[in-house]
Amino acid sequence: MRMAKGVEWALHTLLNLDLAGGGPVGSNQLAAAHGLPVPYLTKQLQQLARAGLVTSTPGPRGGYSLGGPLETVTLLDVVMAIEGDTEPFQCTEIRCSGRMGELSPTPTGPCVVKTAMRRAERTWREALAAQTLAEIRAELDSPATRQVVRESLKPT
Amino acid sequence: MRMAKGVEWALHTLLNLDLAGGGPVGSNQLAAAHGLPVPYLTKQLQQLARAGLVTSTPGPRGGYSLGGPLETVTLLDVVMAIEGDTEPFQCTEIRCSGRMGELSPTPTGPCVVKTAMRRAERTWREALAAQTLAEIRAELDSPATRQVVRESLKPT
Repeated sequence: MRMAKGVEWALHTLLNLDLAGGGPVGSNQLAAAHGLPVPYLTKQLQQLARAGLVTSTPGPRGGYSLGGPLETVTLLDVVMAIEGDTEPFQCTEIRCSGRMGELSPTPTGPCVVKTAMRRAERTWREALAAQTLAEIRAELDSPATRQVVRESLKPT
Repeated sequence: MRMAKGVEWALHTLLNLDLAGGGPVGSNQLAAAHGLPVPYLTKQLQQLARAGLVTSTPGPRGGYSLGGPLETVTLLDVVMAIEGDTEPFQCTEIRCSGRMGELSPTPTGPCVVKTAMRRAERTWREALAAQTLAEIRAELDSPATRQVVRESLKPT
């Protein structure tokens, strides 16, 4: 079970946009900063835009800007923007299939297996929601880092 | 991001084995209980066997038995037996690639993005490890349930 690589790309890209001053920065520059394939990063940027985490400005001086301050963006926001569904456990209600399904009375409550798995997933989502990108930025931030990020995002 | 369906199958199958008295039960019967494809369930059973969660007895009266009491089996044990890796976030160290990689000093510590994502994943694994299959069984267990499970697992 693997998250899309786009989650890593999106997290670093949002941090870069912030450290470089907020944007707008073109997708070519954002991709070149980490040697990423432009079409795939553009797809992730569109998903971030749909979630309101970036905004897109058209035109030659356009590009992507942060949708808001990183204090308001959690890891969960980014994971959900890229991955959508954050319930890894697949419940296909097999308890109602096969011989067991035929012989059991129709269940009146949710499956206890699913409930237990969802309970664990909830702690994960809560832990993702408890960390903002501003907190992660704080661990990276320095004048030297900002200088490197600005330099990396310059049009070539 | 989705877990394999085999996680659901494995959890229900372990609970069934226990409620039916521990085994051995053949893979045909275990599959028929929930209308599952025998070859795929057999593959999951082999993974459970490698993890010590079931044992396999050859022969006409053979089949799969529980490897130990459900009090000693956690949700994490089953997820790891079927899924292997429980670190959904993919870190490909893009911080060291592209223009940013060229312009940054070689990092001396782990990536702060990865560290934050792993922190959240740890809470998830801890929550999975905190729930035993015995606790889930306790929510299902009754003489009627045991009767249905035994009936469902009978050779046809």
